[in-house]
Amino acid sequence: MSGHGVGRNRFELEGVELPSVWASETMRTIAAHESRRGFTAEPLGEQALTAILTAARSAPTSSNLQAYSIVVVRDVERKNRLAELVGDQRCVREAPVMLVFCADVFRLRAVCERQGHPFAADTLEMFLLASVDAALCMQNALTAAESVGLAGVPIGSVRNEPDAVAAELALPQGVFAVVGLALGSPRGPGRGVKPRLPVEATVHRERYSAERLDEALEAYDRATIARGIYRGRHVPAGGDPELDADDEDRYGWCEHTARRCSNPEHLGAASLRRHLREQVRRRGFSLD
Amino acid sequence: MSGHGVGRNRFELEGVELPSVWASETMRTIAAHESRRGFTAEPLGEQALTAILTAARSAPTSSNLQAYSIVVVRDVERKNRLAELVGDQRCVREAPVMLVFCADVFRLRAVCERQGHPFAADTLEMFLLASVDAALCMQNALTAAESVGLAGVPIGSVRNEPDAVAAELALPQGVFAVVGLALGSPRGPGRGVKPRLPVEATVHRERYSAERLDEALEAYDRATIARGIYRGRHVPAGGDPELDADDEDRYGWCEHTARRCSNPEHLGAASLRRHLREQVRRRGFSLD
Repeated sequence: MSGHGVGRNRFELEGVELPSVWASETMRTIAAHESRRGFTAEPLGEQALTAILTAARSAPTSSNLQAYSIVVVRDVERKNRLAELVGDQRCVREAPVMLVFCADVFRLRAVCERQGHPFAADTLEMFLLASVDAALCMQNALTAAESVGLAGVPIGSVRNEPDAVAAELALPQGVFAVVGLALGSPRGPGRGVKPRLPVEATVHRERYSAERLDEALEAYDRATIARGIYRGRHVPAGGDPELDADDEDRYGWCEHTARRCSNPEHLGAASLRRHLREQVRRRGFSLD
Repeated sequence: MSGHGVGRNRFELEGVELPSVWASETMRTIAAHESRRGFTAEPLGEQALTAILTAARSAPTSSNLQAYSIVVVRDVERKNRLAELVGDQRCVREAPVMLVFCADVFRLRAVCERQGHPFAADTLEMFLLASVDAALCMQNALTAAESVGLAGVPIGSVRNEPDAVAAELALPQGVFAVVGLALGSPRGPGRGVKPRLPVEATVHRERYSAERLDEALEAYDRATIARGIYRGRHVPAGGDPELDADDEDRYGWCEHTARRCSNPEHLGAASLRRHLREQVRRRGFSLD
């Protein structure tokens, strides 16, 4: 299966043969996703942006509350400042557009006030609902963009500095940036889709089972080591700064992931996100 | 624009004319999303399910942590019990398959233990990251299903009773059901995509602006009233049980939404979700 310039996809990677009735362009587009971090200087036209935003706005939304907002950032200076705030990411500088998907209960509060009803939904549930709404929009925007040959890089690190991001985008109380999307024309060919954990690790039948987890982790370690995915990208182990001591033949997803989770400073700039709870509260969500 | 049996889509609804370069099958599929809640008795084959799960697993995942799990429920008795737990939803009973997308840090904890590193990422950030991972998978599964003529209904009310859902699906500590997806062959034609808030309300240029919000809310009220979307579905106002007193000509999205947000009992069965914080903590997330 191939088509639409999407190159190798996950069906091919995993050797899944599909009858043509299931092999829609959409299926192939989705299964070909990879984060391509280099963008050309080509601008993103208003028509393409309208198409992508329409796709985003077509995502399902819990109880039709539409508890999200999207901020479109094209201004080069602003985008550069955002690039700094998300961990100095070059892809944000290079991309002609950065979309910021926000959980938004500011609008719901305004609607309550307009209609003369008290707003009584300031709960953890509402924060989660709104964050999920925002995430679903982002995924639609990404898929839509990739379907027409554009590329998108999701930027979770918009959560690194919620106060500064909110100030930059003039987000009112009740609006929290959940995830960004750097968007543009990809530079150069992709490297092919990244292997994921074997389906046995992430998909469960009827009831959750970790019975085959060890086996799956071993297989995934072998796959990530064979592809050299973490070569030159080792995370220091706690208290052990000697990267060179690491054995490339044994440093796969498991070791990389365990080191990251053992020291949140290595989960991107997530050390900063240790205080997310207080920051989200300052953004106007009680989380109760 | 039409095609692939997706019927009327949001581009048509909003009068957006797109040159063919942006009108991919994928764009049209995404823009034609509507929640079709009736399913035929037709089973969902393993090949279709594999395709949909492969699409789900192709979603981007923060730092490649893959902090999600999917539980596939086909067993009729279990599915019926789940239907009860999510607010007695007929679509869950009717659908041949229910997918449950979970935030999963159980696996990350297991990987840390396996590699001999402490797990130090039990934060609100990790809960949010894992929930977003799960949501992105759900959206991919939904889009993939709709692209081949199937239908899916997202079920946020899997969060109504986290303890009971976890018991039914044997979710270990560190796994929380974020959103479900009832999946199958749609029964009868769709009703056409539902109007969304005008783009001015949800999309902001460079900086958040509520300047045109009132105007957008008025337009949306008119659109939802004209379509009769809330006819016969009025939510009682606080302290006023007399539904019949409501004026159909004035009861649109704003009044419906304000009433829901003023009394979380009317946010689906979200009254139950008032205790979500404690329940999420019982599921093994500190939220700190």
